[in-house]
Amino acid sequence: MPEKMKAFAMLRIGEAGWIEKDVPECGPNDAICTPLALAICTSDVHTVYEGAIGDRHNMVLGHECCAEVVKVGSEVKDFKPGDRVLVPAITPDWNSLEAQAGFGQHSGGLLSGWKFSNCKDGVFSEYFHVNDADGNLALLPPGMDPVDATIMSDMVPTGVHGVELADVTFGDTVLVIGIGPVGLMSVAAAALHGASRLIAVGTRPVCVAAAKAYGATDFISYKDGPIEDQVMKMTNGKGVDKVVIAGGDVHTFGTAVKCVKPGGKIGSVNYLGSGDIVDIPRVEWGVGMGNKQINGGLMPGGRLRMEKLSSLVTYGRLDLHREVTHLYEGWEHLPEALQIMKDKPADLIKPVVRIKK
Amino acid sequence: MPEKMKAFAMLRIGEAGWIEKDVPECGPNDAICTPLALAICTSDVHTVYEGAIGDRHNMVLGHECCAEVVKVGSEVKDFKPGDRVLVPAITPDWNSLEAQAGFGQHSGGLLSGWKFSNCKDGVFSEYFHVNDADGNLALLPPGMDPVDATIMSDMVPTGVHGVELADVTFGDTVLVIGIGPVGLMSVAAAALHGASRLIAVGTRPVCVAAAKAYGATDFISYKDGPIEDQVMKMTNGKGVDKVVIAGGDVHTFGTAVKCVKPGGKIGSVNYLGSGDIVDIPRVEWGVGMGNKQINGGLMPGGRLRMEKLSSLVTYGRLDLHREVTHLYEGWEHLPEALQIMKDKPADLIKPVVRIKK
Amino acid sequence: MPEKMKAFAMLRIGEAGWIEKDVPECGPNDAICTPLALAICTSDVHTVYEGAIGDRHNMVLGHECCAEVVKVGSEVKDFKPGDRVLVPAITPDWNSLEAQAGFGQHSGGLLSGWKFSNCKDGVFSEYFHVNDADGNLALLPPGMDPVDATIMSDMVPTGVHGVELADVTFGDTVLVIGIGPVGLMSVAAAALHGASRLIAVGTRPVCVAAAKAYGATDFISYKDGPIEDQVMKMTNGKGVDKVVIAGGDVHTFGTAVKCVKPGGKIGSVNYLGSGDIVDIPRVEWGVGMGNKQINGGLMPGGRLRMEKLSSLVTYGRLDLHREVTHLYEGWEHLPEALQIMKDKPADLIKPVVRIKK
Amino acid sequence: MPEKMKAFAMLRIGEAGWIEKDVPECGPNDAICTPLALAICTSDVHTVYEGAIGDRHNMVLGHECCAEVVKVGSEVKDFKPGDRVLVPAITPDWNSLEAQAGFGQHSGGLLSGWKFSNCKDGVFSEYFHVNDADGNLALLPPGMDPVDATIMSDMVPTGVHGVELADVTFGDTVLVIGIGPVGLMSVAAAALHGASRLIAVGTRPVCVAAAKAYGATDFISYKDGPIEDQVMKMTNGKGVDKVVIAGGDVHTFGTAVKCVKPGGKIGSVNYLGSGDIVDIPRVEWGVGMGNKQINGGLMPGGRLRMEKLSSLVTYGRLDLHREVTHLYEGWEHLPEALQIMKDKPADLIKPVVRIKK
Repeated sequence: MPEKMKAFAMLRIGEAGWIEKDVPECGPNDAICTPLALAICTSDVHTVYEGAIGDRHNMVLGHECCAEVVKVGSEVKDFKPGDRVLVPAITPDWNSLEAQAGFGQHSGGLLSGWKFSNCKDGVFSEYFHVNDADGNLALLPPGMDPVDATIMSDMVPTGVHGVELADVTFGDTVLVIGIGPVGLMSVAAAALHGASRLIAVGTRPVCVAAAKAYGATDFISYKDGPIEDQVMKMTNGKGVDKVVIAGGDVHTFGTAVKCVKPGGKIGSVNYLGSGDIVDIPRVEWGVGMGNKQINGGLMPGGRLRMEKLSSLVTYGRLDLHREVTHLYEGWEHLPEALQIMKDKPADLIKPVVRIKK
Repeated sequence: MPEKMKAFAMLRIGEAGWIEKDVPECGPNDAICTPLALAICTSDVHTVYEGAIGDRHNMVLGHECCAEVVKVGSEVKDFKPGDRVLVPAITPDWNSLEAQAGFGQHSGGLLSGWKFSNCKDGVFSEYFHVNDADGNLALLPPGMDPVDATIMSDMVPTGVHGVELADVTFGDTVLVIGIGPVGLMSVAAAALHGASRLIAVGTRPVCVAAAKAYGATDFISYKDGPIEDQVMKMTNGKGVDKVVIAGGDVHTFGTAVKCVKPGGKIGSVNYLGSGDIVDIPRVEWGVGMGNKQINGGLMPGGRLRMEKLSSLVTYGRLDLHREVTHLYEGWEHLPEALQIMKDKPADLIKPVVRIKK
Repeated sequence: MPEKMKAFAMLRIGEAGWIEKDVPECGPNDAICTPLALAICTSDVHTVYEGAIGDRHNMVLGHECCAEVVKVGSEVKDFKPGDRVLVPAITPDWNSLEAQAGFGQHSGGLLSGWKFSNCKDGVFSEYFHVNDADGNLALLPPGMDPVDATIMSDMVPTGVHGVELADVTFGDTVLVIGIGPVGLMSVAAAALHGASRLIAVGTRPVCVAAAKAYGATDFISYKDGPIEDQVMKMTNGKGVDKVVIAGGDVHTFGTAVKCVKPGGKIGSVNYLGSGDIVDIPRVEWGVGMGNKQINGGLMPGGRLRMEKLSSLVTYGRLDLHREVTHLYEGWEHLPEALQIMKDKPADLIKPVVRIKK
Repeated sequence: MPEKMKAFAMLRIGEAGWIEKDVPECGPNDAICTPLALAICTSDVHTVYEGAIGDRHNMVLGHECCAEVVKVGSEVKDFKPGDRVLVPAITPDWNSLEAQAGFGQHSGGLLSGWKFSNCKDGVFSEYFHVNDADGNLALLPPGMDPVDATIMSDMVPTGVHGVELADVTFGDTVLVIGIGPVGLMSVAAAALHGASRLIAVGTRPVCVAAAKAYGATDFISYKDGPIEDQVMKMTNGKGVDKVVIAGGDVHTFGTAVKCVKPGGKIGSVNYLGSGDIVDIPRVEWGVGMGNKQINGGLMPGGRLRMEKLSSLVTYGRLDLHREVTHLYEGWEHLPEALQIMKDKPADLIKPVVRIKK
């Protein structure tokens, strides 16, 4: 390995660009990897252009990729240089108290299991560092294209987490608010976990088509009036069993509360970038006693989750390829891919950059 | 049974008084009961003086009592006239879809398992009606004083529900906000379900003494600064595992969110009487991804819950008597008992009126 | 309604035939229904020919049907004569303590929620009685053929229960032992609740083809050696995450224990007709400490379950029609349908008798 | 640290004695500790005298102790030499797939989270090795006597696990079979997690007295006839809600199945040392469909569990001292302590050897 590497970084709020950095060091439990394919996340756009996680200087961007292992630490048992791997966006410290409590995504503090491009440099560089390699990497399943595999880093485990938080089960009527790349995976996951009727909120034709393919049965446009009014009409005033929030803003929870039945659950995986408060409507929340559970979470990361969720692809339950609408070839297209994610043209779901076949 | 009865009712918002009413009819699944002892709930005060559930005319008040069965319908198998019974404040329709889903308290719609002094006349009358007697009544356990038994109607099952919603378990550090008669039962229930450190928020000496007896280990006064600051100081910045809300208002949830760890749970049984929204602080809620679950619920009612929770008293786990600070003898003291609940003198926890020994 | 009706009954162990019986009475909460289509269950065969539930005389057989409501009691609110309905095989007493505890299938005692052709007459008669009509019937969903709807009575809710007991979730490798009509629904349900790899044990070509269509990815034949050896080979010695038992006998649990990982779960819905004990292998069960949970259950019945599970059909998640391999027209073919279920020809999954279009 | 140390070891089946061994090496994530106090477990007796885990030569015994840290690896952040620590008997590899699935006790394979005196040398030596120190050690709480702290290694977390597996909650009637040192902690834990009536099976006066103090309300002796007969009589034929098995043998599960209600749960933490099969009675298990869940598990180990469960002691919920009936001073008494555990005199619960004050 060389000592220096090129990396695509947030230079400051509002500006991203190429920099040179030291290749990261590899501790006894760690791995150093090099990307095979990279995907851009809306969060990358928020981080750079909206300063969502605060000002950062020369912080390498990116947390979605498929990679090849270049080096491993002395204590790493299950991976070796040359292995092709899935890399989760969230890489917990597995021996932390939080992980032992089942919340590795918050190991070290609120959201601190999210390390790439947050607590440390991200994956948009020639080499990147993975803490606890045995606990966080997973072998690329045979037959999975590294391009598709980038969708496994964040879109799949986050989309699925929304469905886990909403506790979707057999015969549930489910409302999924937001059908961007995460919401589409929530639609797929809800269908894969027993949803019957699956109402999706969204209008972009490319997303609507994908949502249908992933299992949505009904669609709502926020342009046709308040979502809750449409949902109540569709359900004869009964509301839905579960709501997954994968888009919107701090006010979307109010909508969800109005749409869900007493005893129902709301699971959100939406990053709330602005607003002081999340406003829950007192009356529709049953004056505090409606048993309408509200949950918002960061996806748990790590290896087991990668292995289990990628097996859904291996056994034909989940098609990742439909998420990748824009494919670029080579490092030099990374800025362009970030830009298109910012611009969100009509036909975009997810842009991916292939580095190496 | 006579045709007419006297009853203590809400005449209109702001006014309560004695009225005469027809004795209720008994359907095939129902029972007609007569009170042995009655307890006043803060909700009775809210209902009459704050119009919490809207304007009502000549609606009999009360949902806390111990009673004797006077008549049962043709389909009732397990109760007969003369049986002394526990009466839950919440009496679900057990064959409803909501009850089958585990949420009988919302059978028939949001909060509609709460029938007494809400959907129909309450228990402050010579005779009152119980729907689904087999599903909702429970025999008064041998040795339980009817006076104490009034605490079983609402205080115990509601206090316990807060702990159920917060999912308190072995070794949890638990914050209980509010130590009125419900909060005290939440303190007791948290200690009975594995809490280690048990921080109670409240200042009235009679309540603090009771909370100590029920298992609280630490106390916080809101007069000493923001609760969250005190909690963070006491826990070395870590926060608590679980929060039970049994007092406060719509802003108390913000406090709870600030006090609870990522992965923690908040359970509220507080009736939110005013305010348009419940305000959840976006940042401390982990920008929507902190896995800090928020739950607010009406206690599930019914017979099984009465039987199981009263067995805690029978086997010496829970002392009800400490809740009853004011005991009145005879129907004529009912208005006085309501008034004292409104006035809340320093030494009051709960006023009970004994009708018959 | 006439006073007398014809019915197809177990006359004594080993003999079934037509009898005349009084039309059942309708209590205030009940309904009287007449069948539109009837399905034969293996249990009917066990009941008659193996005396599985003991000797019975002139007990009407059958617990799987789609029906039309003929009469309802005074307290029934949601159904009226003429309504076409789904009828669950298990019809709990919803206000019982067991149902309040979440186990209505055991309301009144072990297995006592199973009333048809067990505690009372079954559905193979011109008229049959349904206890707690509001709690147990469900409207036939628009578009569902009454013939297919018979599969909703037992096959679907039982097959699904196996998956519920095994707690199948995202990315699980699941073993389903037995792919008769119940096991096929367990296969479908496992795929609908997140299973990735889905290994089915069974060999009959008609069932293997159906299992593939329902989502099985791998097949094992018990003729190729011990199931556990084959499973361990297929999983590189790791075993499976979950096992659903929908066939076999008391020894099948030993197989399941050997196949499942530590921390895994075994859910069985198989009726164990003979043998004194279920034998769990001590060593493979981790000398009692392997955290391999063993669960066997009767499906919870009732209306909510009918409504939710049938919505899986309505929204295209589940195809019932493939289960019905043999369709007969008219009451007179009922004995023939029972006989074919006993004979189990190679091409049989489920025989159904249509009474009325 | 010296290079050699003395250790008390299993020499071969049937024989224990002092040996000299190399002081263990310390990897980057590990700690080397020296005991402050040691407790003998029945398992030590089984290991040596019954060859329960097979023949072993010169394997250091012991998995219950309180210790002082002597050395830590380069990656250990939270502990340093001189720290006094709680040491769990089970020390998972926290980044393993099994731990990520919530079953660290089986990290690396069935029961493989149990390392001390099983996969590697135990703690009965001058120095012992702890894998993943940050994940497995916990600071000795202020005020806790190292002698009492030995009870935290196995008795408390195992006893509690029985209650977790049986899922004891508010108002449950609970049967605890076996009131040795583990069973007593199950009794305490059941009372601490909501049990009402708590029936304990056992006869030794010292244990009965302790069980009473820990919360048992009723006692059964197996000498007075079959346990199930006594339980059924005491519960009017209804049975108990939950059963914890902390003693007995492979046949005890049959007893438990007969005692538990449909929908009830059985949690066992008993090591089953002999017998080919665990025999579950088919009929009382509801012919496989009684929804009587059977669970047997090894306690999850690790730091969080140590911290949370020891906080029960800190906050006065649990008294450890009553478990320690025999206290020895100095290494030289270790053989005597093992012998007394083998002999089980009438007044013994647990023997502890203090090494250093």
